[in-house]
Amino acid sequence: MGLPDIVAAARAGDRRATARLLTAVENQTNGENGIDASEVARLVTGGDALIVGLTGSPGVGKSTLVSALIAAWREAGLRVGVLAVDPSSPFSGGAILGDRVRMADHALDDGVYIRSVATRGHLGGLAATTGAGVRLLEGLGFDVVVVETVGVGQAEVEIASLADTTLLLLAPGMGDGIQAVKAGVVEIADVYVVNKADRPGADGAVRDLKAMMSLVRREPGEWRQPVCTTVAAESKGIDDLVAAIGKHRDWLAEGDRLALKRRQRAAAEIRARVDAALRERYKVPEALAEAVADGETDVASAARSVLGDTGQTSSPSHRAAS
Amino acid sequence: MGLPDIVAAARAGDRRATARLLTAVENQTNGENGIDASEVARLVTGGDALIVGLTGSPGVGKSTLVSALIAAWREAGLRVGVLAVDPSSPFSGGAILGDRVRMADHALDDGVYIRSVATRGHLGGLAATTGAGVRLLEGLGFDVVVVETVGVGQAEVEIASLADTTLLLLAPGMGDGIQAVKAGVVEIADVYVVNKADRPGADGAVRDLKAMMSLVRREPGEWRQPVCTTVAAESKGIDDLVAAIGKHRDWLAEGDRLALKRRQRAAAEIRARVDAALRERYKVPEALAEAVADGETDVASAARSVLGDTGQTSSPSHRAAS
Repeated sequence: MGLPDIVAAARAGDRRATARLLTAVENQTNGENGIDASEVARLVTGGDALIVGLTGSPGVGKSTLVSALIAAWREAGLRVGVLAVDPSSPFSGGAILGDRVRMADHALDDGVYIRSVATRGHLGGLAATTGAGVRLLEGLGFDVVVVETVGVGQAEVEIASLADTTLLLLAPGMGDGIQAVKAGVVEIADVYVVNKADRPGADGAVRDLKAMMSLVRREPGEWRQPVCTTVAAESKGIDDLVAAIGKHRDWLAEGDRLALKRRQRAAAEIRARVDAALRERYKVPEALAEAVADGETDVASAARSVLGDTGQTSSPSHRAAS
Repeated sequence: MGLPDIVAAARAGDRRATARLLTAVENQTNGENGIDASEVARLVTGGDALIVGLTGSPGVGKSTLVSALIAAWREAGLRVGVLAVDPSSPFSGGAILGDRVRMADHALDDGVYIRSVATRGHLGGLAATTGAGVRLLEGLGFDVVVVETVGVGQAEVEIASLADTTLLLLAPGMGDGIQAVKAGVVEIADVYVVNKADRPGADGAVRDLKAMMSLVRREPGEWRQPVCTTVAAESKGIDDLVAAIGKHRDWLAEGDRLALKRRQRAAAEIRARVDAALRERYKVPEALAEAVADGETDVASAARSVLGDTGQTSSPSHRAAS
């Protein structure tokens, strides 16, 4: 089966074909397993998916919410792809004591493709891997691509930059709301979701979030993050959440906003790819680490040595793309 | 006041002097504010601090635990420095609705120095900044240096690599235990701490953790992570935790283990410094991102263009340290 056949099969909903292409673009293969990643990038382009980022601490119910959202989007006839970057996600497999969330509802549906993104050995390259995966699924004709991440770290911020609309999921009872906002997640989230809204403390969490939102000064026309409430395990509040996501997409479609987002996404992907290549190229020799540990040299001098320079900071030629 | 005087003052417990030196090494100053970072690195070396990493999701009680640990270490006559990398930590200031934890107990104690590490604008450089701070506090004679981080992301893994002993803090009721272990934190944590141990579910969390520990096969002599329980707000369980940390330090002191840790720490610091410099040097031009967004070129070609090459992957000269 040639590459065009594999692509055609993937477009038609063949999971194995989709998986082969994803593996190729994630690993940037040069013909291994019969697939060349750059050829895939040439063949599979375009598309106009809604890219949804979903982040939140472990235990807030991200996977359950994704499952409920998939059901709603499928009902609307949309094809949905999910990339779970969250290493604690049940989607990522590797269950230790058994997963509580099962995706049996969607396991036999050709309009749904769920995949975990390996997080090992991708130091600096996780966003590159994820970006390539998002681009592929979009090019294959998926209408919605969900990227699930955990936490509020730098990796999440980078990966969120791949999404059009980022959801921050919170659960009552852990002071998550206040702390997440303090952590600056207010800047990456487009929609807040308080899940497990039937639990005590949910009203307080919503109130706190809204109070904090009201403190943020915004220009006219700027997006105001809505606060949605869900009980994902019972599919409650999902329709309102889907509507809020759609509203944000409509807002993005006005003027240059979506084009700007797509440029930012491209920049983040290039950045991630460049960083991964540089990490390969500029390795830290064992002997140098030992010299620093023994106090024979300092960290700054050692870094200069790895960089092969004495402190110049100018960029090399930045050739424009053809 | 010359640099040697500032260093002497910092060694004697002068907070302002310590703050000035930290600012200098974090920002890698070249004489701004009268201090040269590389001169500080030359003057302030050595030391033999216990470097403790503390990580956990927002809301598990990290800051309260740090406060209780400080009290215990102070009672033992040890000087304690804290670097809070956690942007949601009350130590980091910037309270929105008021902090619930106050450090009033330690505010007037010259043997305690607490500082937040700015997390903005340190893309790729957070570990570099933190590493320089740890090294400085150690050189100034602090006996214990605590690095507090949040979450389980890549940044936390990098920062944990700076520590001798890493504590993973969990709280009952959020399924944190199982999910954290699934997230691979098992590999970075040396001691598990179940905080809020007076809450329902604490026994179950401890049982789950121990059950999972028992599944991990270990070589003879390998470290077996203990599971400690605390009620940090009431200083319960702190002595046992301090003992567990000491036990891990003793284990590290056997053979080459501590030397290896220190080499790994140095390697992580150099790596972080190199990455930050490379990010400055290889910027992604706006026009290139636009070309990718418009489908005129692909991400891989754009990355090669930024790298100024056509795919070579060999390293430049790796000069050995003098």
